[in-house]
Amino acid sequence: MAVVTIIGAGAMGSALAVPLIDNGCTVKLWGTELDGDIIKELKEGREHPKHKHKLPVEIELYYANELDKAMKNSTHVILAITSDALGKVFERVVPYLNEGVIIATVSKGYDYNKNDEIVILPDILKERLPEKLKGVPIVVVGGPCKANEVVFKSPSNVVYACEDIEAARNFKQLIQTDVYNVKVDTDVIGTEVSVAMKNAYAVALGFAEGFKQRKGFTHNNTKSALFVIALQEMIQLSNAMGGEMRSVIGLPGAGDLEVTGEAGRNRLLGEVIGGGMNSFDAIQKMKDEDITVEGYSAVNFGYQLSQQLIKTGKIEKELPLLNALNNILYDNAECYKSIKEVLNQY
Amino acid sequence: MAVVTIIGAGAMGSALAVPLIDNGCTVKLWGTELDGDIIKELKEGREHPKHKHKLPVEIELYYANELDKAMKNSTHVILAITSDALGKVFERVVPYLNEGVIIATVSKGYDYNKNDEIVILPDILKERLPEKLKGVPIVVVGGPCKANEVVFKSPSNVVYACEDIEAARNFKQLIQTDVYNVKVDTDVIGTEVSVAMKNAYAVALGFAEGFKQRKGFTHNNTKSALFVIALQEMIQLSNAMGGEMRSVIGLPGAGDLEVTGEAGRNRLLGEVIGGGMNSFDAIQKMKDEDITVEGYSAVNFGYQLSQQLIKTGKIEKELPLLNALNNILYDNAECYKSIKEVLNQY
Repeated sequence: MAVVTIIGAGAMGSALAVPLIDNGCTVKLWGTELDGDIIKELKEGREHPKHKHKLPVEIELYYANELDKAMKNSTHVILAITSDALGKVFERVVPYLNEGVIIATVSKGYDYNKNDEIVILPDILKERLPEKLKGVPIVVVGGPCKANEVVFKSPSNVVYACEDIEAARNFKQLIQTDVYNVKVDTDVIGTEVSVAMKNAYAVALGFAEGFKQRKGFTHNNTKSALFVIALQEMIQLSNAMGGEMRSVIGLPGAGDLEVTGEAGRNRLLGEVIGGGMNSFDAIQKMKDEDITVEGYSAVNFGYQLSQQLIKTGKIEKELPLLNALNNILYDNAECYKSIKEVLNQY
Repeated sequence: MAVVTIIGAGAMGSALAVPLIDNGCTVKLWGTELDGDIIKELKEGREHPKHKHKLPVEIELYYANELDKAMKNSTHVILAITSDALGKVFERVVPYLNEGVIIATVSKGYDYNKNDEIVILPDILKERLPEKLKGVPIVVVGGPCKANEVVFKSPSNVVYACEDIEAARNFKQLIQTDVYNVKVDTDVIGTEVSVAMKNAYAVALGFAEGFKQRKGFTHNNTKSALFVIALQEMIQLSNAMGGEMRSVIGLPGAGDLEVTGEAGRNRLLGEVIGGGMNSFDAIQKMKDEDITVEGYSAVNFGYQLSQQLIKTGKIEKELPLLNALNNILYDNAECYKSIKEVLNQY
C-alpha cells in the first residue's frame, strides 16, 4: 500500500491529505520549521489554522526535526513548499528518497537554477537529484484548486503532468476521488508556465477591480480584456519554452487564472494599486505585514524570462501586459494609464 | 461623413452611440415599439432608463413609427435587437437599406432559418436581403462588453468580424476611440458561436455560485473547472460549424464568458438553481416576472445544434456540460449531482 509523505503542512499540503486518506493511503504530513504551530494544533485535535477545519485523524503528523520518520517507507512524496524555499527544503528531503519513489510538486513559480538561469520548478528539483535517482519521475500539479475547497470537498478538476505519463497515472490512482478529479498529461512545461504566470496576471485582474474604487464605476470589460490578453501572453511564453497551448487554455492556465482572479492575495495586491495606492507603498505595506504575494515575484521572473526569450529569438516582440505589470510594480508606473494603453495596443 | 443608424434603443444599442458621437459621426437612434419610453426619456433630456446615465445630446432620436427618417442617408446600420426578434425587425429595415451600406449586429444567439435549421444570426439577416443587396457586408460584434461600461468609458476590447475584412476595418475606423478598442477579424462563425454559447455556459458558472448557498462553502474550484469545460465544448461547437479556435479562446469566447460569469441574468438564473430552487420553479418565476434570460434559450438551441452536428459526424461525441445544462433546465435534472458528474467525466 502507498505511503505518501507530504512535505509542507501549509494550506495545500494539508488539504491533499484528505483525498489520500479517503482512498486509504498512509499519509505522513511533515511541517517545516515555519509550520510548527500547525503541526501542534493538528496533534492536539484542533482545526488547521489555515482552513479552519479539522483534518482526518488518520494523518500521521511530524515536526521539522522528524523528517527521517516522515520519510520512512515513503513510496510517494508531495512537495508543498513555497517556490522560493523549494530547492533548499528539497535538499533536505533528497537523502531519504527511496528508489522507485514518485515525486509530485504543487509549488508554483520560477526560480534561478545553479547557473543563474530562470527555470521552472521541476528543473530546480532535477538538478538536486543524485545520479542514482536521476530517473525519479516528477509530477507537476496544476489547475484551479483552492486548498480549503479540497478539504470541504467542492468538486475540483486538476492536472497531474509528467513526461512519464505512467507516473502521473500512478499518482492519479492514489488520489482521485469522486470530487477531486485528476486529469493526466505529459505537458510539464505548459503546466508549469501557466501555474507560475497566472499569479502574475491575477495582479492585473486585480487592477481592474481596483479601478472601480478609483473611478466610481465597474471595469468588468477591462478585467475580461485583461484576462484574454493574459492568456495570449501565457501562450507565447509557454510556446517559447516548449510547452503546449492546451495547458494554457485548459485547467492550469485559463482555469487557474479564473479562480485566482476571483479572490486571493495576488488579486488583492492589484486591487489596492488599481484603487489608487502608489505601487511602492502597496508593496511596502505587504512586506511590513509579512504577507507573501507570489504574483509580485512572478511578475519580475516572468518579465526577465520574456527578455531572455526575446533575446534568443523565441518570442518575437515584447509582451505589453507583462511589461506594464513589471513597470507598475517595480518602476512605479501609473497603473490606470498603463493598463489603458495595453488594451489599446491589443 | 458617416451616418450611423442604430436599430434598437436598449442598453447596448444606445451605448454604442457614445464612441460614435465622440468620433463626430451623425448617429440616429431608433427605438422599437418596446423602446417608446426610452426614446421619450432621452428626448426629454433625462437618463437612459437602463444605464441611468445621460447620453450625448447630439444623438438624433426616433420613435418606432419614424423608421424612414431614422434610415435616411444611412451609410452604416447597427442592429441591436434581441436575437428572437432580429429577423422580424430586420425585415422592416431592409426596404430602407441603401446600396453601399455596411451592417453590424450586436445581437447574440441562434435562430431557426426559413428551412427550420438552427443557424447563427448573420444567416438570419442574409436570407432576408434582396438580390441586389446580397453583397452588403455584415459585421458581427463580439467580446466582453457591458453596455453601461461603454457609456462610462471603462476601457473595453471587442472584436468586429466580417468575411470582408475591409468592412470590419471601415466600422472600426468610425467607432474606435481611446477606450473602445476594436480588433478586426474574419472569423464570423467562431465569433457568433462564442457569443451565443457564452450565455448558455454562464448559467453553469452561476450554478457554482449557487452551490455556496446550498452547501455553506465556496465552489470556486468547481466554477473554474466549468469555465474550462465550457471553453472546450465551445471549441468543439465552433470547429464543427467551421469557426476558428482563436475566437473561442479570445475576446468573444473566453473574454465574454468571463464577464458574463461575473454578473448578469444568465449567471443569476444559474445561481438560483444552484442554490437549490427547482429548475422549473426558477424558470416559471423568471417568466412570471417577464425577465428574458438569453442563456435559457441558448442552452436548448446549443443542445439541438450539438445533436445536429453529432448526427452529421461533425462532432464525435456528446458534450457533457451542454447536455447537463439542457437536462437541468428542460428536464428538471438534479443540478448538483449532474454538475459533479460532468466534472468527473472530464
